[in-house]
This record gives sequence, C-alpha cells and structure tokens, in this order.
Amino acid sequence: MATTLSPLAPASFPTLPPIAGVRIATANSGIRYKGRDDLLLAVLDPGTSVAGVLTRSLTCSAPVIWCRDSLPKGSARAVVVNAGNANAFTGKAGDATVQATVDAAAELAGCAPDEVYIASTGVIGIPLAADAIGKCLAPMVPTLAADSAAWEKAARAIMTTDTFPKGSVRTARIGGTTVTIAGFAKGSGMIAPDMATMLGFVFTDAAIAATALQDMLSEFTERTFNAVTVDGDTSTSDTLLLFATGKAGNAPVSSADAAELAEFRAALEDLLLDLALQVVRDGEGATKFIAITVRGADSDAAAKRIGMTVANSPLVKTAIAGEDANWGRIVAAIGRAGERADRDLIRITVGGTLICAEGMEVPGYDETPVTAHMKGKEVDIDIDLGLGKGTAKVWTCDLTHGYIDINGSYRS
Amino acid sequence: MATTLSPLAPASFPTLPPIAGVRIATANSGIRYKGRDDLLLAVLDPGTSVAGVLTRSLTCSAPVIWCRDSLPKGSARAVVVNAGNANAFTGKAGDATVQATVDAAAELAGCAPDEVYIASTGVIGIPLAADAIGKCLAPMVPTLAADSAAWEKAARAIMTTDTFPKGSVRTARIGGTTVTIAGFAKGSGMIAPDMATMLGFVFTDAAIAATALQDMLSEFTERTFNAVTVDGDTSTSDTLLLFATGKAGNAPVSSADAAELAEFRAALEDLLLDLALQVVRDGEGATKFIAITVRGADSDAAAKRIGMTVANSPLVKTAIAGEDANWGRIVAAIGRAGERADRDLIRITVGGTLICAEGMEVPGYDETPVTAHMKGKEVDIDIDLGLGKGTAKVWTCDLTHGYIDINGSYRS
Repeated sequence: MATTLSPLAPASFPTLPPIAGVRIATANSGIRYKGRDDLLLAVLDPGTSVAGVLTRSLTCSAPVIWCRDSLPKGSARAVVVNAGNANAFTGKAGDATVQATVDAAAELAGCAPDEVYIASTGVIGIPLAADAIGKCLAPMVPTLAADSAAWEKAARAIMTTDTFPKGSVRTARIGGTTVTIAGFAKGSGMIAPDMATMLGFVFTDAAIAATALQDMLSEFTERTFNAVTVDGDTSTSDTLLLFATGKAGNAPVSSADAAELAEFRAALEDLLLDLALQVVRDGEGATKFIAITVRGADSDAAAKRIGMTVANSPLVKTAIAGEDANWGRIVAAIGRAGERADRDLIRITVGGTLICAEGMEVPGYDETPVTAHMKGKEVDIDIDLGLGKGTAKVWTCDLTHGYIDINGSYRS
Repeated sequence: MATTLSPLAPASFPTLPPIAGVRIATANSGIRYKGRDDLLLAVLDPGTSVAGVLTRSLTCSAPVIWCRDSLPKGSARAVVVNAGNANAFTGKAGDATVQATVDAAAELAGCAPDEVYIASTGVIGIPLAADAIGKCLAPMVPTLAADSAAWEKAARAIMTTDTFPKGSVRTARIGGTTVTIAGFAKGSGMIAPDMATMLGFVFTDAAIAATALQDMLSEFTERTFNAVTVDGDTSTSDTLLLFATGKAGNAPVSSADAAELAEFRAALEDLLLDLALQVVRDGEGATKFIAITVRGADSDAAAKRIGMTVANSPLVKTAIAGEDANWGRIVAAIGRAGERADRDLIRITVGGTLICAEGMEVPGYDETPVTAHMKGKEVDIDIDLGLGKGTAKVWTCDLTHGYIDINGSYRS
C-alpha cells in the first residue's frame, strides 16, 4: 500500500471548531490495521436531524442497507464508522454484525437503534465478527470530545488507502444566527460515487428539519460528490450523511427552499465540493488534478455523461499522467459517450488554449502552451459541443503507475 | 512505445493460403513510421461482394464515413489501409485526403471510387496530406501477391502498438465446395469495440451476396469483436470488413439463413472470435488473458453489460495483474453495472472454485486454488446471477504498468 503523501494534498488539515451537540472519539479496533485508530464513534445530542445519500450499488454493504432503512425517521443520536473491512457481501452474518454494533451504540447513547448510523469501508467479502466493533465502543465513551484534535482524529480513523485526512468547514447566517458546518470524508480508490464518496460526514449546529436537509443534500451531491471520479469503480459502501444538531439557536427551518437558507445552501454546497475535490486530490496514484468543463450539450445530463466519459477514459488519464497533449483521446471519449455530438461543432480548450474547432486542429495550432500547462499539477479541459445549453463540471485525476502499485496488492 | 512481445502472444503467425481473387502488397508510406511497412493495398477481382461493421463513435474518422457511405453498394475492388495516422478529427481536409486516396486506388484497380475501401489507424487529430497515401500506391501494384508471406506482411503493416500480427484461417464446405476464409486484424489499446476492433479484414473465396455477408457479420460481431475490451475506450476508427470474391465455385448464396451456409457460418464466427481474442492477447501491457462468463441474468444483453462492466473495472484488472484473489471487486462491479442483481443469489466461481453464494463467502472457503489459478496466464471468471436465462461471454486482459508506460507517451 502506498503511504507517500499525494502530491496534490492540501498544505494541512483545516481547523474544525466544535459543533454544539457533537462529540467524537476514535480507537483501534484490532480488525485489520495495527498502530492506528480505525474506529470512530460520534455521539449527537437529542434533537439532531439527519439526511443521507447512499450508494445505488445493487451489491451494497450491510451498513448501507441499515442507513437506508433508518433515514425516513430523520433522527440521529450516534454514528459508528470502521475502516479496514467494508462488511459488504458478508451475507446474513454481516447484517447480524450491523445489528450487534447498532445495539451496543444505542445502549451507550441512550437512543433507539434506528437513531444509530453506521458505515464501514475496506475490503469486500471478508466476514466481520458480530462483536468486533460493538465491544470496542464502551471504552471510547469517556474520551468523547468536540475540539479540533478530535475532528482530525476522526478524519484519520476512517482512512484506507487515503494519504491525507480530508476536512472542511464553513459558516453561514440563518436569520441572523451564525451556524457552522464541519465535515470530513475519506476516499481514494473505487471512486465513481453514484451518490456519495466512499464515506463523508457533515455536521452543523443549525436547526433544520430532516426533510429540508435531505432535499439540499440530494441536490448538491449531484454537483459535488457525484461529479468526481478516480477510476469509474463505484463502491459498495458510498455513504454521505449530514447531521444538524439544532444547537445554534436559529429559528428551525423546515423547507430547503426557505429564503433564510440561501447563505447556508451556498456554504453547504461549497463544503461538499471542497470535500469531494479533496477525494480527487487523493486519488490512488494521482499526480495531476483534472477539471473538465462541458458546455453546449443537449442537456445538463448529457454534458455530465460526456464529462464523466472523458474523466474515466484510461487513455485520457494516462496521456495526462505522461504530460502528453494527446487531445485526440478526448475526441474519442466524446464520440463514445452515448450522447449527441457533431464532430464539426466541437471546440476543445486545454489550459486556455483552443486546440480544435470545425472538425480539426485550429489553423496554426501551437502545442507549446498546452504542453506547458500539462506539466503543472492542475489540468483544465473545456469542451464546447456547440449544440445546446447543457453544462456540467466534473473532476478527476490522472492514471499512473501508483494506481497499479496500490491496487495490485491492496489486500496484502 | 512498448516493443516487447506480449506474453500472451500465440507461438507464430498462422499460414494463410491464397484466396482466389485477392492480391496484396505493402509498403512504407513515410507518414510516421520508419523502417517498417505501414501501408496496405489489396486488389480484389471483379464480382467481389463486401460487408462491414464500423464504429458507432460520433467522432468517427473520415475513412469510416467513406466506408459507411459505400457499403450499401455491396461491391469491392480495392482496400487501402495505413497505420500511424488515423485521419480522424481532421475536418474537411481529412475528407479530401480520403477522396484523393480513393481516386488513386480506383484508377489503379479500374473500378468506381465507391468500390474502394479505406481504413486508417494511429494518432487522432494530426492532418494527413491529401496525396500522402495516394502517391504511394502505383509502385505497389507490381508487387501484388497472394502467398502466405503477403498475408503476414499485410497483418504487420497495419500494426500500431500491437506486439504481434494477428491472422486466422478456416475452411468450410458450401454445397460440396470447399471455401476458405482468411483474415487479419490489428488492435492493442483503445479497444472496446462498439462494432469491431480497430481494424479487421476477412476474405473468402466463397460466392455469397453482400446482404447475406452483412447479416452474418453483424450477428457474429456482437459475440466476437464486440465482446472484447482492453481499456473501455472505443476507437474512432473501428472497422471490420468481410470480402467474398466468389472464386471458389460454389453456387452463389443469397441468404445468411441458407441451409448450405451452416458450416460456413460456424467457420466465420470461429475465425472472427480467434482474431478478436488475439487482440485481447495483445492488449496494451497485458500479462493475463481473462475470460468472463455471465449466466443467470435477466437477458443476454444484461449479462453482457454486467460482463463488460467487470471486464472494464480498473480495480478488477489491477487485482488480477497483482494475482490477488480480491473477488470483492467483482462484486462491486456487478453492483454498479446498472442491471438487476440480487446479492444473495450471486455465485462467483474463479478457476473452477466457487467463492461466494448466498450473499457471502462459501463456508470453509479456501483461497489457495484460486490464488494458484491467478498465477497462470489465463484467468476464468464465472458469474451466475441466479435470476434468469441470460448469458454472455466477454474477454479482456489485466491492467498493468505496461499500459501506463505505453499510453503516457504514445505519440512520442
């Protein structure tokens, strides 16, 4: 497993402030990793609402099934997350492990089982003993904390092949009251979220009803976590949860469309995008961060499908890894995306340099500035289909020897 | 560019016999490659019928457009193929180059322009001078030949990142007359044919009408060239052409369903599969040949979509490269394929060993034989969805450092 820090990592983990009503503890479970925390327990005060988006994978994990069944209640009191074993494709035994974990957490938090949220990440198909997690929880309760060190430890405890912990914080005013949103995520490979990254957890002290939280989360996920890809492999465990403790003191908001949520909505989407892009920056083996803008498509959905096809093209990703301005591979990916395209209308711009138009290289095309752009850590690709008004932005990373190294021996 | 022979290469190029009515010559065009032939001219006797399947890419090459427009006529007298420049995304200039090439070939062959078939493979988006190919053709005419050396030279002349030439031959009886089918193909990367490999050319001396040829080719392509993938990147230039000179002396056949074609149909499909699998065996960087059988799906189409999703999964492919029996990645790929799946009914067998059933590892699962199987060059994966009667077989190769090496610097 690669342990070298991603060259695209941010300088440091941000300082996340306490969120009233949220306390966090981490520990080592002994399940897979040695010498590091791999278990997270968060306890939430009564009155916390919750929203979530979960993998649409049809072979999803036992924890995902649990969360999906619990979300309609919209109330949360505890979160348990482990890294190293995904508890996916573990059959009825896996379901029993979830039940035992949830029961243990519910007893400690003094809540109903369906107020406990659970997520697991790691290897698929390895049985996980029923008490493997539950027995670890009681000793964690005395260490529950809300300071910035606790947040960073939480972000680290859920890492697998990640090379850095991913956190983000924003503030917003709701009707004159300042609320805070803090979140963390993990993800590096098996990243083509079909609703969320591997795992993401966001907490706010705002008072917002679960249904309103859910509306916002579903809407923003499409443009954030669902707009990034590392390798096109959607995980069995993707889970993004948003908790609102209601401790900030704002007048409770019940609709995602309420005028007083305007600033909060912007802050939440911005935070989700920040976390999602940190996942891309930690893409397995990544050396380049790639932003792809598609415009002029038949629809936003068509633009996104084309953007994701380019973003998942092994040939585009290896060319960028090799700093090779081989734009013909972008053309090929557009052509196979399954959406309408007209060769003679496509305009491709890389790093601000228009490369092709009217079905061929622009007259006098000079590759020099494009090659120079590709030597940097951030590569911008702009695709104008010239057909309609559909637009999308997606983000990915390059495909390198590092990806092969990491994934040829992930389990070892 | 990698020049090491693929470890999955066959021992030698097969001996292809003359096909009456087909003569072949090769030359160096000077377009891109030095010190090797990169241009193929085949001249066909009058009366030759033709069928073809072409890329469905919406950014297809100028030669593909030409062939698509000519196929309805069903008659062929010449074939021109160059390697090194795909003449794709070259605008109106690219169309003019095709026209100039076709005109030159038609004059030499004494035929109409729409009886000339043309294919180009190589880098996308690089202008190709109008006379670059056409001016090379006349000197090739005196060297036209029909012997086995000519076939092998033809198969070599159309290679790009291929590490070995790909040929195949079959015989069949039609109404008591023995006919021969000989073909060659190229392809190594940008292989996820959406109707054909990069390039494939098949010739027979049988007398079969173009419509009957087309029916057979379209049907068999779905189970052969369209059932293999190297990297999921469909090419702009995929072209598979089938020519029948009618010189064998069988009574002409006008329907693909004619009883006397039974043996020919089997031979043709077998030959197409042989060529398609040789493309997989020469997949860029490949060290393992992977056969995936999907059964028990809702439909054949669902089975194929699931098989191709597994075959294109970077995580499955890197795990196999690393000889890691990480079957959870197969589960994850099934789950995101977009077809119906029920976790608790899926049965996955690798190398004859049943790994999982009823939603989890089978009791007492011993990984030893699976790991041993994965150390070989051929990996067999069998997926039973337990839902219906849909089946499909697809083939791919592993994803290795070699693929990254080749594609980080393909143009250099």
